[in-house]
Amino acid sequence: MFDDISPSNSGRASGFGESFKILFRWKNSVYRLLWEPFLIYVASYITLSLIYDYVLSDSARIDFEAIAAYCSKYTSSLPIVLLLGFFTSTSMQRWFAVFNTLPGTAKVIAIFVLALKENAAEGAQMIQQYSRWILLSWTFTFRLICQPLKKLYPDLQSLQNAGLLLEHERLQLEQVQSHHASESDHYLSLAVLDWNLSILKRCNRQGLFMIPADCNRQVDALMAFKKSCCNTLKFSSKNIPVALIQVVTITVYSIGLASLMARNLADKNHATSFITGYFPMLNTFQYFLYLSWLRFGAMASNPFGEDDDDIDITKLLQSHIEDAERLQALYISSPADELVTK
Amino acid sequence: MFDDISPSNSGRASGFGESFKILFRWKNSVYRLLWEPFLIYVASYITLSLIYDYVLSDSARIDFEAIAAYCSKYTSSLPIVLLLGFFTSTSMQRWFAVFNTLPGTAKVIAIFVLALKENAAEGAQMIQQYSRWILLSWTFTFRLICQPLKKLYPDLQSLQNAGLLLEHERLQLEQVQSHHASESDHYLSLAVLDWNLSILKRCNRQGLFMIPADCNRQVDALMAFKKSCCNTLKFSSKNIPVALIQVVTITVYSIGLASLMARNLADKNHATSFITGYFPMLNTFQYFLYLSWLRFGAMASNPFGEDDDDIDITKLLQSHIEDAERLQALYISSPADELVTK
Amino acid sequence: MFDDISPSNSGRASGFGESFKILFRWKNSVYRLLWEPFLIYVASYITLSLIYDYVLSDSARIDFEAIAAYCSKYTSSLPIVLLLGFFTSTSMQRWFAVFNTLPGTAKVIAIFVLALKENAAEGAQMIQQYSRWILLSWTFTFRLICQPLKKLYPDLQSLQNAGLLLEHERLQLEQVQSHHASESDHYLSLAVLDWNLSILKRCNRQGLFMIPADCNRQVDALMAFKKSCCNTLKFSSKNIPVALIQVVTITVYSIGLASLMARNLADKNHATSFITGYFPMLNTFQYFLYLSWLRFGAMASNPFGEDDDDIDITKLLQSHIEDAERLQALYISSPADELVTK
Amino acid sequence: MFDDISPSNSGRASGFGESFKILFRWKNSVYRLLWEPFLIYVASYITLSLIYDYVLSDSARIDFEAIAAYCSKYTSSLPIVLLLGFFTSTSMQRWFAVFNTLPGTAKVIAIFVLALKENAAEGAQMIQQYSRWILLSWTFTFRLICQPLKKLYPDLQSLQNAGLLLEHERLQLEQVQSHHASESDHYLSLAVLDWNLSILKRCNRQGLFMIPADCNRQVDALMAFKKSCCNTLKFSSKNIPVALIQVVTITVYSIGLASLMARNLADKNHATSFITGYFPMLNTFQYFLYLSWLRFGAMASNPFGEDDDDIDITKLLQSHIEDAERLQALYISSPADELVTK
Amino acid sequence: MFDDISPSNSGRASGFGESFKILFRWKNSVYRLLWEPFLIYVASYITLSLIYDYVLSDSARIDFEAIAAYCSKYTSSLPIVLLLGFFTSTSMQRWFAVFNTLPGTAKVIAIFVLALKENAAEGAQMIQQYSRWILLSWTFTFRLICQPLKKLYPDLQSLQNAGLLLEHERLQLEQVQSHHASESDHYLSLAVLDWNLSILKRCNRQGLFMIPADCNRQVDALMAFKKSCCNTLKFSSKNIPVALIQVVTITVYSIGLASLMARNLADKNHATSFITGYFPMLNTFQYFLYLSWLRFGAMASNPFGEDDDDIDITKLLQSHIEDAERLQALYISSPADELVTK
Repeated sequence: MFDDISPSNSGRASGFGESFKILFRWKNSVYRLLWEPFLIYVASYITLSLIYDYVLSDSARIDFEAIAAYCSKYTSSLPIVLLLGFFTSTSMQRWFAVFNTLPGTAKVIAIFVLALKENAAEGAQMIQQYSRWILLSWTFTFRLICQPLKKLYPDLQSLQNAGLLLEHERLQLEQVQSHHASESDHYLSLAVLDWNLSILKRCNRQGLFMIPADCNRQVDALMAFKKSCCNTLKFSSKNIPVALIQVVTITVYSIGLASLMARNLADKNHATSFITGYFPMLNTFQYFLYLSWLRFGAMASNPFGEDDDDIDITKLLQSHIEDAERLQALYISSPADELVTK
Repeated sequence: MFDDISPSNSGRASGFGESFKILFRWKNSVYRLLWEPFLIYVASYITLSLIYDYVLSDSARIDFEAIAAYCSKYTSSLPIVLLLGFFTSTSMQRWFAVFNTLPGTAKVIAIFVLALKENAAEGAQMIQQYSRWILLSWTFTFRLICQPLKKLYPDLQSLQNAGLLLEHERLQLEQVQSHHASESDHYLSLAVLDWNLSILKRCNRQGLFMIPADCNRQVDALMAFKKSCCNTLKFSSKNIPVALIQVVTITVYSIGLASLMARNLADKNHATSFITGYFPMLNTFQYFLYLSWLRFGAMASNPFGEDDDDIDITKLLQSHIEDAERLQALYISSPADELVTK
Repeated sequence: MFDDISPSNSGRASGFGESFKILFRWKNSVYRLLWEPFLIYVASYITLSLIYDYVLSDSARIDFEAIAAYCSKYTSSLPIVLLLGFFTSTSMQRWFAVFNTLPGTAKVIAIFVLALKENAAEGAQMIQQYSRWILLSWTFTFRLICQPLKKLYPDLQSLQNAGLLLEHERLQLEQVQSHHASESDHYLSLAVLDWNLSILKRCNRQGLFMIPADCNRQVDALMAFKKSCCNTLKFSSKNIPVALIQVVTITVYSIGLASLMARNLADKNHATSFITGYFPMLNTFQYFLYLSWLRFGAMASNPFGEDDDDIDITKLLQSHIEDAERLQALYISSPADELVTK
Repeated sequence: MFDDISPSNSGRASGFGESFKILFRWKNSVYRLLWEPFLIYVASYITLSLIYDYVLSDSARIDFEAIAAYCSKYTSSLPIVLLLGFFTSTSMQRWFAVFNTLPGTAKVIAIFVLALKENAAEGAQMIQQYSRWILLSWTFTFRLICQPLKKLYPDLQSLQNAGLLLEHERLQLEQVQSHHASESDHYLSLAVLDWNLSILKRCNRQGLFMIPADCNRQVDALMAFKKSCCNTLKFSSKNIPVALIQVVTITVYSIGLASLMARNLADKNHATSFITGYFPMLNTFQYFLYLSWLRFGAMASNPFGEDDDDIDITKLLQSHIEDAERLQALYISSPADELVTK
Repeated sequence: MFDDISPSNSGRASGFGESFKILFRWKNSVYRLLWEPFLIYVASYITLSLIYDYVLSDSARIDFEAIAAYCSKYTSSLPIVLLLGFFTSTSMQRWFAVFNTLPGTAKVIAIFVLALKENAAEGAQMIQQYSRWILLSWTFTFRLICQPLKKLYPDLQSLQNAGLLLEHERLQLEQVQSHHASESDHYLSLAVLDWNLSILKRCNRQGLFMIPADCNRQVDALMAFKKSCCNTLKFSSKNIPVALIQVVTITVYSIGLASLMARNLADKNHATSFITGYFPMLNTFQYFLYLSWLRFGAMASNPFGEDDDDIDITKLLQSHIEDAERLQALYISSPADELVTK
């Protein structure tokens, strides 16, 4: 499954050929991302220029100039570009890897639906249970790593209200929760997957599968789904180290602070000293280049958050639920029959 | 499947050994890509030189020189090379990854054709429907991410005219469309795949498969096809962030603007100041190196557009349609029979 | 399986959006990692400044200044940034690769449990043995590469006490140990896997599998588990070369030592020379940037140690044991039966 | 399959430990690759020095010195190292990826041979046809991307002469060719694969497979072979963009030209100005470092050419043909029988 | 399988946390790798200093100083760091890739052992032959790329003496050898694999497999083993180009030579000029950083040699042989039977 595919979005990409168009987009743009710090930065810079030009005494100016030169040296000495390059490309590689391995519910449900005998007494009920539990297990997995989903379904009761969980199931899961206080969601997910294994065993015992060997295929698909859930958790739990993010962040911010002071005051030409003092393009550009780069790395290291470019897990869940409903319907009716026979 | 394999194209590569030959190609060349901005750039640069040499007063020249020195510093201060390096190599890696995972229709159709009993009453019809729906689902997927295909088939009626869709199927799909306004193409693709699942179920019920377990293989292939379609959409929707492209583009353009002014006017030697003023090789080269690099990254981040190096999806669809027709023909006749028995 | 997924941990990631919050975390932070060397470094630096300002004679000061200039050149000449960049990104790529290929016990146990006939006389015993031996083999593998696990289970007796090993099994394994003195753990792991192959053969002979072909699936899963164990060992044994770690470490430390002396004493301005002498932000920042970068690479090159960010293998084993118990229970009872029939 | 494994070649690698030995190899060496441009470069450089020292007037010398300084700046300003680094490492990664995915014929033939009933009337003929067509399809694929193979087999008649194609097959393929003028080889390859699908269908109809389900395995292997062929074509057709190769090439050559002039003539010391003028080690080394780096990238971007390090497709085809013959022989005789029974 | 896992080795890694400990290791250390060139380098450097200080006349000193300055420029102009970075990381990536794809013999033997009927007359003999031939084919593959193994088994007779080959088999292989003079080992490996295909055919014909379809699984595993062998050869034959290794090596050595002369003699301060002359820390460090980096790349580009960090193929073969023996024993006896029934 996927999200956020809209014509306007795909239209963006092809507009790139005309190189300028993309510069004037606002949605997801760097302007929207950084306009606030930008204003603060420029205001601070100009304030310092005004102080230098109109407030300071001559001796204070000499100190100011020395500090400005020191800050210039500071900003150019730190190896920030390579640090950001390695940090961001590592984060992005992980981001893409996470995105490609998100667990999907469609396959495991579809092969179950198509493997059951058609007129079995319990068939429809089994399918309904099986697919609901797959969705439930998916939800428990993503609740662990995705704040918006956690907010939407903060507890078992909210899941029951949403129809993903029944009363007596919730009671049983609460027992699991009480055993594993700190990481209960993970164990809830595992418990629900065990229920699904039970369904498979029961179907096999009652001869509900068209071919006896079909049971094995279901187990394989279910274990692959479980592994995929665990991998998603692993990616999130063993991510870019916090300390690395701190180091990169501190470095960028300290360069930003120093670059507020950093200016070449030795050049006494009227035109350029005015530019240097009141149109700090070079400093601003350099700092916001670093800052935006840092943001990309930071966004990429937390793909399930609430940023614009993050993966919209809530919408994704909705899409999985609809897909599951369509597959359940397939057991009873065959939409294609009427199409074929026409 | 693939596209754009022509003898002339493959001949290109081997011509590289003789290092010079490739420099004089026009098709897909950097010259064709950049000759317009190149002319504008050089003209602007020389105009500025003429103004400096023949228009400005002495005091204005001093300001011009100061600004030129400031711009020189500007162009050399921004860490553009590493930024471009990381941006372009990340884009290209994704480009290659997308290209390797494009969904193919051949396998899912071929195994269906070879699994059906030979003289089944509905066989030929089933195969025709199944393969047409696979192609239809492929088309819906690529319409989402590929502007040229969207232009070719803007709505369901155009697909019906092209023979990919029947009247009563279109009516049913229009209902799906009305439910999912914003992302209908995605849901159309899913709906058509559900029809194919129905066909599989129907064939199984009527005993059309040579071996009962064959149905499972079809389901697996169909789900793999579905996953492949979704992956292509995912690659396109969660691409290089817009903001990153904006940042890189702004940086390159601002360096380009600054480099128009950036020149060393302190050197008063006749020969070199003439070169500096009227043959701006260094500035031009540097800027167009960055600009072409930026273009590669930009092209790679939008692989389904209309650029020369982009993937020609329309042609690819045609090739898939022909392939499907050949495979359908295989059900009725066996081209090899006559070849073998000779 | 996985470890260390707690709400507090996952909460961290989403807090990143608000850029500042992450800077004030202590757990796993760069401050906790480096506060000791930081204090030592700053104290040493200031001591040197005091000596220069208040102890040295004028001629000694001239030598001090020359040495300081030499050290400044030293710290800027070594290509430490790229060295660290390549080292750390190579280490991290391996770290992620190791993490993704850790062997899991769930699948191999689950398919065994679901393949056995339900009311077989020896069934429950077979399952108990099989899953215990899988866990045992996993433990032998990780004892080789993970110090904390080696400390927990230093010998076979300790494993017997933990219930992973029976008396008569231990006696047999001690024979294996005496044959292969230096790398016994590896051979213990292989021997236990051979026992499992024996169980599969025995079950097949006695007709315990529901479908005869099921035996093959078990063998495949078991060989995949074996390969996964061997891969984990391979990753650990053929890691980043020791000599490379030494080179990077020596380089960073020597830069650290030189940067204690490195200072610009030619600048005689009161304000900046005070900053240079007693607030060595530039030197400190630069060195600790390198040092923390080195630490990330070093941690990543040893993923099974006792650092905060390392993988907690002991906890992971516990989780595998619990999972195995749940799967064993599935053979006898079916938790879902009561849930379904409600 | 593979090529170019000779003892001398493998001996090379192990000789590396003794660091000097590899420097004195001629085969595949950088000396052999670059001795011609090297001589031209050095001769041009010295000629310029002679002109400066013995021909030019004093005023011309001043211009020469200014231009030399300008060229020095030029060579050091372009970011050639990073450009080459990103270009070459991207090319090499693709090279290795291509090399690992070359389609092999052995598996698809071997499983066909071992699946047919032993004393079938048409068995031997079927196997001969099937394997010849696999090789034919392989040849069509590589003719598209490999000039040497295209030269060896320029048309269908030459393939018929080589025994890969029969008379009546050629006639049929010529019809395909006339339909698809520009990319016929691709469609020839697909057509031949369709013949193989026909053979599978025919064998299944006549009950030639030992197990009915074997037909499916053959189809899977054949479709995998087809996908592998298409992937190889895709890799070659969507390679590093021509424009990128042009940009890198122009940059390196322009630096080479500038570095002929680039020299420090301000230094008037006798010893070093003699070195600068007549032993241009620094310039030469720098340029040839770039040039050789460029060559690696260029070679890697065209893996099927005629360079020393390219893949020898013609030899590879021969090896595949021999392998196919051995596998065909296996159907009739069993070499191991006599070995086993001894 | 794997090699070189010893407690001391794994103990190394965890010792890293305490950052200093690893610096004092000797085994595999950078000291052991480079102490000889280090002594030579320092002695040469100091000799040059002594000549300058005590031998040269004043005018010669001026030339010496000019050349020293020229050399300083030389060492800092070449882009060695990036060259080494790209070279070494490319080599290491290939090294890890090779290591992960080494062919293993365990799976192909294990599934053969477990698929044969238990009391078959020829069973034990078949298994013995099959597994010996697998090992033989493995040995032929690695003889091609691994000098130590080639030394151990220089010809067929030595393999016969080691028990891997029988008399009449050797005679047959000598015929293969005489046909393919230059690359015989490759064809020997293929010939032996064909014998194994014969065994599979024979077992199938005689009904030795428990399930008829088992033969297919054996063929698949055998073809996968063959592909894995070929991949290992491919990795080794199409490695980092010789010319690239030469370029990097020449660059590093020429920088080493230049850095012997490179020194700042303009600085006349007593303290620093003494350091510059007789404690060449900066030059030494820089050069040995490059040299060790080069060595890592060189070692990684030749993974099967005799260096400390190389893969010990001889030991690996021994381990494969023992594993094969254990698996053969499994056919007759079942070690687990007694363990289970207790």
